[in-house]
Amino acid sequence: MEYRRMGRSGLQLSVLSFGSWVTFARQTDDDINDRLMSIAYENGVNFFDNAEVYSAGKSEEMMGRILKGKDWDRSSFVLSSKAFFGWKGEDKKPNQHGLSRKHLIEACDEALQRLQVEYLDLYYCHRADKNVPIEEVVRTMNVLIQQGKIFYWGTSEWSASEIVEAHMIARELGLEGPSVEQPEYNLFNRRKMESEFLSIFENIGMGTTIWSPLASGLLTGKYNNGIPDGTRMSLEGYEWLKDRALLNDKISRVMQLGDFAQELGVSLPALSIAWCIKNPNVTTAILGATKETQLLENFKALEVLSLLTENVMERIDDIMGTKPELFR
Amino acid sequence: MEYRRMGRSGLQLSVLSFGSWVTFARQTDDDINDRLMSIAYENGVNFFDNAEVYSAGKSEEMMGRILKGKDWDRSSFVLSSKAFFGWKGEDKKPNQHGLSRKHLIEACDEALQRLQVEYLDLYYCHRADKNVPIEEVVRTMNVLIQQGKIFYWGTSEWSASEIVEAHMIARELGLEGPSVEQPEYNLFNRRKMESEFLSIFENIGMGTTIWSPLASGLLTGKYNNGIPDGTRMSLEGYEWLKDRALLNDKISRVMQLGDFAQELGVSLPALSIAWCIKNPNVTTAILGATKETQLLENFKALEVLSLLTENVMERIDDIMGTKPELFR
Amino acid sequence: MEYRRMGRSGLQLSVLSFGSWVTFARQTDDDINDRLMSIAYENGVNFFDNAEVYSAGKSEEMMGRILKGKDWDRSSFVLSSKAFFGWKGEDKKPNQHGLSRKHLIEACDEALQRLQVEYLDLYYCHRADKNVPIEEVVRTMNVLIQQGKIFYWGTSEWSASEIVEAHMIARELGLEGPSVEQPEYNLFNRRKMESEFLSIFENIGMGTTIWSPLASGLLTGKYNNGIPDGTRMSLEGYEWLKDRALLNDKISRVMQLGDFAQELGVSLPALSIAWCIKNPNVTTAILGATKETQLLENFKALEVLSLLTENVMERIDDIMGTKPELFR
Amino acid sequence: MEYRRMGRSGLQLSVLSFGSWVTFARQTDDDINDRLMSIAYENGVNFFDNAEVYSAGKSEEMMGRILKGKDWDRSSFVLSSKAFFGWKGEDKKPNQHGLSRKHLIEACDEALQRLQVEYLDLYYCHRADKNVPIEEVVRTMNVLIQQGKIFYWGTSEWSASEIVEAHMIARELGLEGPSVEQPEYNLFNRRKMESEFLSIFENIGMGTTIWSPLASGLLTGKYNNGIPDGTRMSLEGYEWLKDRALLNDKISRVMQLGDFAQELGVSLPALSIAWCIKNPNVTTAILGATKETQLLENFKALEVLSLLTENVMERIDDIMGTKPELFR
Repeated sequence: MEYRRMGRSGLQLSVLSFGSWVTFARQTDDDINDRLMSIAYENGVNFFDNAEVYSAGKSEEMMGRILKGKDWDRSSFVLSSKAFFGWKGEDKKPNQHGLSRKHLIEACDEALQRLQVEYLDLYYCHRADKNVPIEEVVRTMNVLIQQGKIFYWGTSEWSASEIVEAHMIARELGLEGPSVEQPEYNLFNRRKMESEFLSIFENIGMGTTIWSPLASGLLTGKYNNGIPDGTRMSLEGYEWLKDRALLNDKISRVMQLGDFAQELGVSLPALSIAWCIKNPNVTTAILGATKETQLLENFKALEVLSLLTENVMERIDDIMGTKPELFR
Repeated sequence: MEYRRMGRSGLQLSVLSFGSWVTFARQTDDDINDRLMSIAYENGVNFFDNAEVYSAGKSEEMMGRILKGKDWDRSSFVLSSKAFFGWKGEDKKPNQHGLSRKHLIEACDEALQRLQVEYLDLYYCHRADKNVPIEEVVRTMNVLIQQGKIFYWGTSEWSASEIVEAHMIARELGLEGPSVEQPEYNLFNRRKMESEFLSIFENIGMGTTIWSPLASGLLTGKYNNGIPDGTRMSLEGYEWLKDRALLNDKISRVMQLGDFAQELGVSLPALSIAWCIKNPNVTTAILGATKETQLLENFKALEVLSLLTENVMERIDDIMGTKPELFR
Repeated sequence: MEYRRMGRSGLQLSVLSFGSWVTFARQTDDDINDRLMSIAYENGVNFFDNAEVYSAGKSEEMMGRILKGKDWDRSSFVLSSKAFFGWKGEDKKPNQHGLSRKHLIEACDEALQRLQVEYLDLYYCHRADKNVPIEEVVRTMNVLIQQGKIFYWGTSEWSASEIVEAHMIARELGLEGPSVEQPEYNLFNRRKMESEFLSIFENIGMGTTIWSPLASGLLTGKYNNGIPDGTRMSLEGYEWLKDRALLNDKISRVMQLGDFAQELGVSLPALSIAWCIKNPNVTTAILGATKETQLLENFKALEVLSLLTENVMERIDDIMGTKPELFR
Repeated sequence: MEYRRMGRSGLQLSVLSFGSWVTFARQTDDDINDRLMSIAYENGVNFFDNAEVYSAGKSEEMMGRILKGKDWDRSSFVLSSKAFFGWKGEDKKPNQHGLSRKHLIEACDEALQRLQVEYLDLYYCHRADKNVPIEEVVRTMNVLIQQGKIFYWGTSEWSASEIVEAHMIARELGLEGPSVEQPEYNLFNRRKMESEFLSIFENIGMGTTIWSPLASGLLTGKYNNGIPDGTRMSLEGYEWLKDRALLNDKISRVMQLGDFAQELGVSLPALSIAWCIKNPNVTTAILGATKETQLLENFKALEVLSLLTENVMERIDDIMGTKPELFR
């Protein structure tokens, strides 16, 4: 396993990590997830990603039960949670979501309880919140750091200028800005990582823990013959994945990429994940496997990495046609 | 004439202003420009925009000669220049362009000499410069403010996050960040003003002095029958305008918009300019006329403004198809 | 016993102190260390030095057990630990060493547990870490101070400019920089204390808790006839001490110094230790004895101090030939 | 000519530059220096270095007369001076030397007069001054920047920790620290550039304008047969160069390096200068020629640069034996 510094921070993350985005407490049970986390840990994964909203808190509870049963030293892994959406779904009340001090602190305490740990290594603002001043967010995150409940704070799906605004406020107050952003990044979604964020990588030094390296499974090739029932894309609550995919065009590109992967002698998902971590501004790609074979297949991305020469990268750009124009 | 505060600053700019982007010392001479500036001034324009690079310094020299001949009170108008490209073209040496302290200060002194004034009201960084730390830019602009050589400083064609980075440094040092950005904005180029910059309008309070409200003349309809010789688009040094325009598609939309203008009983350029200043985040739209009739036609945008109801705006969006997707 | 202010801080340290560098849990057992610590305490030593890496955590555990058995008021002594190397040796994982926030905080908690105390008086960065921004270190140490887990923080074997960089960041943020540095200092290793650090003593006011006053035992004279088995220099893991010593030349100087000590009527180690604490920039010299007689002998340095006139000091310089050239 | 950014500043300096250390107004006259400066400028040199103490002010006067006669655009070159030693030699009074505000400002005004320019691009503290608080130096340099008399300030022959102390004060006050240091650097004097300064290059981003790339001429080979009368080393006031050189050993190394240069097919001085600018932490090497042939020979260093492969560099290290030990 390769480890990378999370931006300019001192924290080291494995370049592949383990997330429980849609998998936990939903399609699977404790046993399978226990095995998946063990496989990940044994393969050198040191970052386990979570959020209050994943399966409405149940994902954290399951991860907490599993971690409890392990003899892993707490210092050997990095654990995260995220607040914004709340975990009560439609029933949530005014202060049970968003980035107010009340919700950020209460959500952190709840995550610590569900995960059965004393501190989170990373704590993210799961989205930006127009209804909370950035100063309140910055101050609250620094309170949590002071209290020893979190070590670093981050953002997820914020714009570059929102991130810099947080740093502006933080510097003005002598406080700590976000160290890490969690954006979507994959062969279909490149604009933020490869254009909008360039100046914050250079001038602020953010790390990134990217999600959806396989574009919601599209880059596994499993939708090449249409979307079967029972997959993530047909699950309740994720219809937007269906809408968002301009599926026809995308699937044709996936098929071409699959041919090219075969030419290289590697699998399509391993190639797609390796392509993500080839970008040095990616600290780690979060994998969201539901089966052991799938997870092991994804780890092969580490071996594929060395095949990604300049020529191969150009070939991929040609196939996908998604390289963002640089505005300067 | 309507006047607007330049963002949260105290400066008031006329909502239509006069620029000398490609016109001066090139297609025209002192006499015609003298008349154009007088017409503008008499119609309430109080902002005259310039830059070191326009006609390689000659645009500033001509504007300086013209202003010298007027009896306009210096306090009655606002004058700008911009540094970055240098004015020596291919012969420029290492420190004769860019945003280093050396060039920013030397270029300011040179602009003051060419314009024959003691101070500039606005001084812009004409582009961002990856080879100069933003701190050096912020400090230098504040030195110039302290020395009384400029009143406010701004940026042109910077990204939202670069602008916020400048404010971050400025606040950290107790100095003044940029008050104004000069982006391109017109019916073909809306992404920055209507999406990327939203958080800086809200959180930083930047003003904008937008350029190219007629998309390099495309929105006058004059290219509807192709690009004749002798127009700006065929001038040496501006071939990029030609390349950039995906002309065929664009011209067809311009023709539809022309029909709609006729329906409204207004001219196409007046409609296009009015559409720009309808956006309250626009402080002023810089006009770049080369003929009196053209300039007078453009001023009619002020009257068109009241016709731009919600329905009209939606109709325009439908015709143009350029409304940017909001990412949140 | 003489007590000195630790630099410009308010803390008072005995000029001789007790360290457990290589001795604990290795060559000796609880009983002997219990007696050694009692002797030290009864002779006025108030500073007991430790680190996570000493005997892989066992040195702290033993010191914790011993302190538990004493009726010493916690306020009567000063206790330290240090983080950087980790305590897991070859098995350590990415975030189990270094100066990241994660390791500094986790290592502090672990040291508190092993030492069975509620706070450390001093907590050191055992080395500099190129992979962690100094700002992260400064902020984390201040978090620990805020949480009441440590009272002062320090550095060990940092360069002068790294120490000043830490103070630069600390002042910028209104936080507390390091109060104390722990460098090696003895008659064979004088450059840092007598040249490089001069400006930080004057301008920053650092205290120093110097280690290896007897140059790993070389200045006891015990290696004058070669290195016997069973001494520290032949212990596994400390071969580097052997490599580093250009033994032949050094031993000849030690023999001359021994003659001079005899001339003065004092022992060689007492003279060597007294020479260290003669330097007013030394707050305390950490002694690392393994036998009672040895420790008692070392305390005689306090009496030798008054013999160190200017002439004697020059004579020592002549014998050793190690006085650093001042660069200015 | 290659140009490099001066550290993290935005200023660009030619990698070879022209100094008037001992040459001006002493061994030569206006005519020869006029030709030398023209040759330098025509070869792309854009930095001309000076100091109040060089020939007791006469060096600046001569450079001022020469520049006056040129039609070089002021923005096309970078001019420096330095204060500390004063220019009155033995007759100097208490405030006519050192780094007090009084001397720094008065010396700057005098340098501007002697050089007949309105501002200096670079202004150096020629040495550190224990009798002036660093805060006074930092504040004064920032006053001069505000007044437009200087653009950037620097230090010469300061220690790494003194430089960081200046930055510490500057950051605390929101002022500007030194951007550039002028140390001696050549194949006989490597410790500062290759060891002591490493952390300030990385963490502070200082540029360097190194002096004496030929070790006072020693690396030209001209002393290989002893020191003739009439050379710089025998000139009054430079006896220290003689004392400092452990000439015998050094000359033997120079002779071996000369053989190696011959093997490479290049001259000894070109090789020695190229070796200096091979170090990426060197912004520019200041050449101090007194003859046209010598200056032209030195410019050949630019061509030699590409020959300096890793192997060649190791070979040079072996011959010279001057590579500093890294302390970490």
